[in-house]
Amino acid sequence: MQLMKAREVRLASRPSGFPTLENFEVVDVPVPEPGPGEVLVRNAYFSIEPYMRGRMNAIKSYVPPFEVGQPMTGGTVGKIVASHAPEFPVGTWVQSELGWREYAVGPAKFFRKIDVSQTPPSAYLGILGSQGLTAYVGLHDIGGLRPDDVVFISSAAGAVGSIAGQLAKHAGATVIGSAGSAEKVAYLKNELGFDAAFDYHDGETKARLAHLSPDGITLYFDNVGGEQLEGALSVLRPFGRIIACGMISQYNVPTPGPRNLAQVIGKRLTLRGFIVLDHQARWKDYLSEAIPLVREGKLKLAESVVEGIANAPQAFLDFLRGGKYLGKLLVQTHEDRS
Amino acid sequence: MQLMKAREVRLASRPSGFPTLENFEVVDVPVPEPGPGEVLVRNAYFSIEPYMRGRMNAIKSYVPPFEVGQPMTGGTVGKIVASHAPEFPVGTWVQSELGWREYAVGPAKFFRKIDVSQTPPSAYLGILGSQGLTAYVGLHDIGGLRPDDVVFISSAAGAVGSIAGQLAKHAGATVIGSAGSAEKVAYLKNELGFDAAFDYHDGETKARLAHLSPDGITLYFDNVGGEQLEGALSVLRPFGRIIACGMISQYNVPTPGPRNLAQVIGKRLTLRGFIVLDHQARWKDYLSEAIPLVREGKLKLAESVVEGIANAPQAFLDFLRGGKYLGKLLVQTHEDRS
Repeated sequence: MQLMKAREVRLASRPSGFPTLENFEVVDVPVPEPGPGEVLVRNAYFSIEPYMRGRMNAIKSYVPPFEVGQPMTGGTVGKIVASHAPEFPVGTWVQSELGWREYAVGPAKFFRKIDVSQTPPSAYLGILGSQGLTAYVGLHDIGGLRPDDVVFISSAAGAVGSIAGQLAKHAGATVIGSAGSAEKVAYLKNELGFDAAFDYHDGETKARLAHLSPDGITLYFDNVGGEQLEGALSVLRPFGRIIACGMISQYNVPTPGPRNLAQVIGKRLTLRGFIVLDHQARWKDYLSEAIPLVREGKLKLAESVVEGIANAPQAFLDFLRGGKYLGKLLVQTHEDRS
Repeated sequence: MQLMKAREVRLASRPSGFPTLENFEVVDVPVPEPGPGEVLVRNAYFSIEPYMRGRMNAIKSYVPPFEVGQPMTGGTVGKIVASHAPEFPVGTWVQSELGWREYAVGPAKFFRKIDVSQTPPSAYLGILGSQGLTAYVGLHDIGGLRPDDVVFISSAAGAVGSIAGQLAKHAGATVIGSAGSAEKVAYLKNELGFDAAFDYHDGETKARLAHLSPDGITLYFDNVGGEQLEGALSVLRPFGRIIACGMISQYNVPTPGPRNLAQVIGKRLTLRGFIVLDHQARWKDYLSEAIPLVREGKLKLAESVVEGIANAPQAFLDFLRGGKYLGKLLVQTHEDRS
């Protein structure tokens, strides 16, 4: 039998500073054969996420680094095309962490079945995936979201922010978002239902927030750190809370922290970091709340799709630079023939 | 009758940058006469505290600024020498906020009786005063102190730090302190019972902490911000907590925040600011725990006393610069003839 070819993206070298295309290679490999108890999955989409930048460096973190010469990994959804595991028949849609490749093989326990009868498969990489749970846990478990909150969300057109904003609106809060272009600002207000939004290039965050919400904010969902964190500290009301979810502006270059951090004392603020891996017990609560809202169109998927695995490295670089993509960024490896 | 003279310290002008002696004036005034319902108190000691630096500027905060040309205020203890309030007879020891002067007059409600039968009167400005409550509330209500904690306390030879360290030891925790001189370091280890201590001039905080506690710390009681906060962020274990009590290093000059603030995410840290004014309901709990310990000598007073109100401005400047005083700094205005 002639071996079919498949492609995968490998880490070619570790970046020094901002990554470049040379740090990646797209390699042809044979489509793997599933062994006993294993399944072969034809990935339909894989996910591009900020934390993957950290894994390109050889630094100890809550996830191990990618290995040079090995394929990168990350969230993906696909359909089983060959199976030696009776509980996972051919045709079953599954989710796994074996992304950045066209075909994934492994023991059945590496895969989790997903229900594609109510929502598109790609939803499980975005609003029904770990970034949806991140937004949910961040707002509720870390931030203690209340209906009377005035919530500011940075990187609000990004994967987590676009979901957090919709969930906070759904909970009755007032929601302000920041993003990196006029197109994204319009998207937040017109498509995702934000009360207000601004382009963070249009002057200081502090001034923009003071203009949009003269009485201040009560909750900041921080996806970026840096200048926007400083601005939020300035306008948070007493007893305000900061959900420290991401500081993407600081992943490539260590940046001085906010000059006004001392405001946490006078204003009795709480800043709390979290990672979603600690909150897996909340999946059931989140999905039971979110799936009906997605099905009814009350939560939008908010995704951007890049076609073809060969375009994944450039898409990842554009994503890290910011400005190009709305919502969750996915690479479509194969047509979604569900 | 000939009017007796008394002295008070006034704010002569607002400082630009670090304060100087010219910003203060020590003025002779007549000893005031108490009116109906008022008492006259001969202050024995008054308190010098970091937050007073903030009040010298015309900046809105949780306490209003001092007024130029008016006496400064702050915690003081003294004895009633004239009274038109029957419930406050002459000879009663009281505490008030009318410090920085030799005699204080006002309606009885401005004064709170203190019990000097078990401890010296000055204890009520230090270990039994608001800085004692600050240490107690910070450790327990904000930091959730546990017996298995490894606690790092900056400015540990200062008023709050010296109490926080003793209370944390008393609760069973391991306690490391930083201070600004070899004398203070010895004081922490030999007099106050700290497990370890270091001089923050002796290299990076991160390296000093890693040396003294190779497995990291679990709780940081932050009195200074800046470089020591950055060092603590580096060595905090996952799920560590930061009690943001003071950032004295940042009161005179806005300073870039910690460059590694993003660690709050990967390590799931919580940083929480507080001010003791919000926690007055905890006085009873604190005093009932602390008074017996002070009486039995299990909590040390940890105070430094400067004699004479005329020396108060220089003492305040030395205090802000750091390095000179151990523990709580008090000015003795009159001999303690209790």
